[in-house]
Amino acid sequence: MTQSVLTRADENLNASLERLFDLVRIQSISTDPAYKAECRKAAEWLVAELNSLGFAASVRDTPGHPMVVAHHEGAMPDAPHVLFYGHYDVQPVDPIELWDTAPFEPTIKELNGSKVITGRGTADDKGQLLTFVEACRAYKETVGSLPCRVTILFEGEEESGSPSLKPFLEANAAELKADYALVCDTSMWDRDTPAISAGLRGLVGEEIVITAADRDLHSGYFGGAAANPIHILTKVLAGLHDDQGRVTLDGFYEGVEETPSQIKAAWETLGLTADKFLGEIGLSIPSGEKGRSVLELTWARPTAEVNGIWGGYTGEGFKTVIAAKAFAKISFRLVGQQNPDKIREAFHAYVRAQIPADCSVEFHPHGGSPAIQLPYDSALLNTAKSALSDEWPKPAVIIGMGGSIPIVGDFQKMLGMESLLVGFGLSDDRIHSPNEKYELQSFHKGIRSWVRILDAIATA
Amino acid sequence: MTQSVLTRADENLNASLERLFDLVRIQSISTDPAYKAECRKAAEWLVAELNSLGFAASVRDTPGHPMVVAHHEGAMPDAPHVLFYGHYDVQPVDPIELWDTAPFEPTIKELNGSKVITGRGTADDKGQLLTFVEACRAYKETVGSLPCRVTILFEGEEESGSPSLKPFLEANAAELKADYALVCDTSMWDRDTPAISAGLRGLVGEEIVITAADRDLHSGYFGGAAANPIHILTKVLAGLHDDQGRVTLDGFYEGVEETPSQIKAAWETLGLTADKFLGEIGLSIPSGEKGRSVLELTWARPTAEVNGIWGGYTGEGFKTVIAAKAFAKISFRLVGQQNPDKIREAFHAYVRAQIPADCSVEFHPHGGSPAIQLPYDSALLNTAKSALSDEWPKPAVIIGMGGSIPIVGDFQKMLGMESLLVGFGLSDDRIHSPNEKYELQSFHKGIRSWVRILDAIATA
Repeated sequence: MTQSVLTRADENLNASLERLFDLVRIQSISTDPAYKAECRKAAEWLVAELNSLGFAASVRDTPGHPMVVAHHEGAMPDAPHVLFYGHYDVQPVDPIELWDTAPFEPTIKELNGSKVITGRGTADDKGQLLTFVEACRAYKETVGSLPCRVTILFEGEEESGSPSLKPFLEANAAELKADYALVCDTSMWDRDTPAISAGLRGLVGEEIVITAADRDLHSGYFGGAAANPIHILTKVLAGLHDDQGRVTLDGFYEGVEETPSQIKAAWETLGLTADKFLGEIGLSIPSGEKGRSVLELTWARPTAEVNGIWGGYTGEGFKTVIAAKAFAKISFRLVGQQNPDKIREAFHAYVRAQIPADCSVEFHPHGGSPAIQLPYDSALLNTAKSALSDEWPKPAVIIGMGGSIPIVGDFQKMLGMESLLVGFGLSDDRIHSPNEKYELQSFHKGIRSWVRILDAIATA
Repeated sequence: MTQSVLTRADENLNASLERLFDLVRIQSISTDPAYKAECRKAAEWLVAELNSLGFAASVRDTPGHPMVVAHHEGAMPDAPHVLFYGHYDVQPVDPIELWDTAPFEPTIKELNGSKVITGRGTADDKGQLLTFVEACRAYKETVGSLPCRVTILFEGEEESGSPSLKPFLEANAAELKADYALVCDTSMWDRDTPAISAGLRGLVGEEIVITAADRDLHSGYFGGAAANPIHILTKVLAGLHDDQGRVTLDGFYEGVEETPSQIKAAWETLGLTADKFLGEIGLSIPSGEKGRSVLELTWARPTAEVNGIWGGYTGEGFKTVIAAKAFAKISFRLVGQQNPDKIREAFHAYVRAQIPADCSVEFHPHGGSPAIQLPYDSALLNTAKSALSDEWPKPAVIIGMGGSIPIVGDFQKMLGMESLLVGFGLSDDRIHSPNEKYELQSFHKGIRSWVRILDAIATA
């Protein structure tokens, strides 16, 4: 059965591309109020498409740009119910003069030996979300139904901070709750190797302000006797890591588990050495915990990073001032079961212990979220891995992601759903930049991949 | 003989004040080109006064505001030749609305139980330089001559960085060279206790820029593997001091001598405890080298201070960036015979040793000057100390100054002259601020002090 659906997807390709072009032509830039009507137009276009496929789809108003929600029953009543997530809004196009072809006039052209689809949103995320819709179309046109129950949620504010998403999930939790979420907004490992992101690091952000004297001081008059808050701050920050690159906060590694050796071995085979990974940014020596690969360091290990620091005189020339205050912004990336609240508390205690009795410190929290980790032995993960491996030249790899994708945390927290992150972008797709493109192969094999994954999930 | 000169100074006081008022009325703000003619007028006024006293005085043009140079022979041919330095230019008066009386309309009024002379420049430095001129007048009017040979140098650019001073000293070295310089631009210890500044700390300024990656990075993608230049910088800066508050640079304390115990004992009697000194700025715990008084720390010990630090995201909110570069401005205050060049080299070597092989550091020097230290057993110092102690309610104290006074270094370096720093300002004179004042007692006893010091120097 799957083979006939795949064949149908192949036969549909030209028409699928026409539909993608239609969607890309809609200038749904969410962050610019001038494009408000275009955002609604994209939502309406999607609703019309989904209704024509037999979904019960509707435009759902929010205080910002509308959501699209669609439901379709599955052929097998015992199969899992999946929620598919994507976003129809796109980034602004400036600087427009750097585009080789107009951002909202998609074309297909040859680039470095591959056929690519050009235009804003082709990779992020219109091309990706349509891979799923077109997979559903191939099913419907071949067997008249979908293999499992499917709910679709398309957002129109992903590129502008998703202000309406949480309230919408909360208000519509019962309607949106499924067994798993499928999220299609990520990339492949390389053009031959599909990837599933099983881990997303969490984040704790903190701003600290250390105050010493009640005014800025002349370093000639007071230097040597008055506390310098920059000195205190540098001691505090320098002490965050030991000489093995480990974070020194009490209990910091509670909930951090070693990555299974077979996963580490699989990462080794990807061949991304420190030289390659760091060479692209002009570096060569991994800076974090000693004895771990760059992939492990960025995907599976927690960090403490100072993201900003300032205090005293920072202009041209020189001023012999001892500042009254010194400032820093610090973030912790979390993995496994690390508890954001406990880490914030440990950080506060660590800093407070180093503040002299006549100085003071203030803390300003900037968000906190735990890591997301699909168990490496999860059935969902392995079902999808095997389905993807059947489609692509090389087997799928289970990877981590160093950053956060808020929607995944929201699905986990608000709807109790794990997310499967599968996407077909490539690292050179130039998302958010001029000349965004999506590989024709990504679109075509992406559609075929969803056909295989839906089948595998339904029959697992 | 001295007594009759002192009596003459007392009798002259009202007329002396009239002359000070005349000089204060001239709006010689050196930093504002609109007052260029007023600066010249002040120089010409001084030249006329000095010529009327029998000096050979002249206005000497520079590329900026003119100098005043005057010469007078001394009665005793074997007595030392002294150069007296002061400056006739003043600070701007903004914010003008905060002045209780007009800045260029001097008055005498009662303030906290003392008579004070109000107006811009009364303390800094017109009132101070006239104490010396009026002392000369008392001599001339009483005995017809001065006790020793006197050269006077008045500058008109002290409040705007003295750009013409070094070239002028260089071009006129033979004319200006004397046995000692007398500099009257400092303060008393308190209203009853005159002070001589015997030590001025030197300064080495450095800006460092640490570069890691060749661009700013996303801390999710690279965090944990890519070097963070802020981390490197904080380690470098935190390591500048050990846990005893001592500076860790190799050879940093070469040339630093312990302050003689009788000087330290004299400082103890001043009663400036850490609580008092630091309490004024909201602190209480001395932060520098352990086991030393705040006066020793600020007058007689070298320091390393971070005067500015910056890197990464420093705006509102949060950005999970790993910066490409991190910056700091650092200064070292020097004492005794510390060599600024060696300290700069030791700092460079210390920093370089901590920069990972794939990162780099740049240094930008910001000036360097050695400390100035009159030997505590210098005859000049002790002669002046004893003369001052005869005049004031309490004995004079030999103090240090934490900052630098460039003119003193220039006299030392370019003319090979030691400087005696004696001044009659008080710490609440509000120099550079609205409502500048000079105590009537400072003016009166200041004149009498110079009478005594000139006599003591001539007869020592």
